[in-house]
Amino acid sequence: MSADGQSVTIGGRSIDDYIAMVTEFHGTFAPGLLLGGFMAEHAMKNLPPGEFFDVICETSHCLPDAVQLLTPCSIGNGWLKIIDVGRFALSFYDKRTGSGVRVYLDHHKLKKYGEINDWFFRLTPKHAQSRERLIDEMIRAADGVFALRYLSVKKEFLAHRHGGPIVLCPGCGEAYPSDHGERCRACEGALPYND
Amino acid sequence: MSADGQSVTIGGRSIDDYIAMVTEFHGTFAPGLLLGGFMAEHAMKNLPPGEFFDVICETSHCLPDAVQLLTPCSIGNGWLKIIDVGRFALSFYDKRTGSGVRVYLDHHKLKKYGEINDWFFRLTPKHAQSRERLIDEMIRAADGVFALRYLSVKKEFLAHRHGGPIVLCPGCGEAYPSDHGERCRACEGALPYND
Repeated sequence: MSADGQSVTIGGRSIDDYIAMVTEFHGTFAPGLLLGGFMAEHAMKNLPPGEFFDVICETSHCLPDAVQLLTPCSIGNGWLKIIDVGRFALSFYDKRTGSGVRVYLDHHKLKKYGEINDWFFRLTPKHAQSRERLIDEMIRAADGVFALRYLSVKKEFLAHRHGGPIVLCPGCGEAYPSDHGERCRACEGALPYND
Repeated sequence: MSADGQSVTIGGRSIDDYIAMVTEFHGTFAPGLLLGGFMAEHAMKNLPPGEFFDVICETSHCLPDAVQLLTPCSIGNGWLKIIDVGRFALSFYDKRTGSGVRVYLDHHKLKKYGEINDWFFRLTPKHAQSRERLIDEMIRAADGVFALRYLSVKKEFLAHRHGGPIVLCPGCGEAYPSDHGERCRACEGALPYND
């Protein structure tokens, strides 16, 4: 139960069920998945008018997995994009108009939540953290540690993913999208393989 | 049933169950999820000796979602990395030693599979594709359209994700990892927001 007596859920699931779901997907449980679940829900509750929303996730850590499990947006369907600026924040935006809402962790609001604060700022070594106290505090806080603002995404970012010709690379002989250039990016050194 | 009379499964599921699972996650069904399921399985069956494997996916389209659903590797836990060179290929590698296996679509082998060939090279307009024939052919082909090679991933790519100090950005006032620099990347213009 939350501080105001309401049953707390994420994605229509109890917190225990939500934690079980994200743990199965993510391989282990990480507190960022719980905070991220509240964040994704808070964004969805505050969407501006629109029909189809894509997501920009501003960190590659944990938060993208909460989005993938709670929304139709995944990294493989392209509706979720990660731009890793290292901030715990999400923007949901209408993929045609660019109108959206950004939800971010407001560190001023962490003053009331010492466990979350110390976890978020990495002030407590992992072995000294109480997982139980941290989870309890996150449930108590729910969306109380976020702020939001409305924004618009640049038109050039809204372009649909290409569906151009697939051709054979003269370098490696494998197929690649011709709009990547004369040779595939792998042949330009984009991959970290030794050979 | 496959051409050789064996029941075809992906991730221990029947093809119908696999398609239902990926469709729920991905929002819609895409043929690349089925081919990607076979690819991920083929890579896992051919892992070199090792204990913990990370994945590099060489395209951002579809294939990452098959990996996320069939392995413990996700974009949010960092065990899956996407380096979008536009090739339909996966590398699984030991995260400590870098030894791995790369599985890729071998277009020479598509000569026997006209439906897959025309879909992959985008030779048939979407409205003229027979989804049923394409799926049937993918099931018949299974891992018969892939090739693999063993490789090693560069040591510098194997480094563990940082866990350095989180500080407040003098630009936006939000928290970010100090090892990103003096200001956060958002304040350096990394995000496509208008304001």
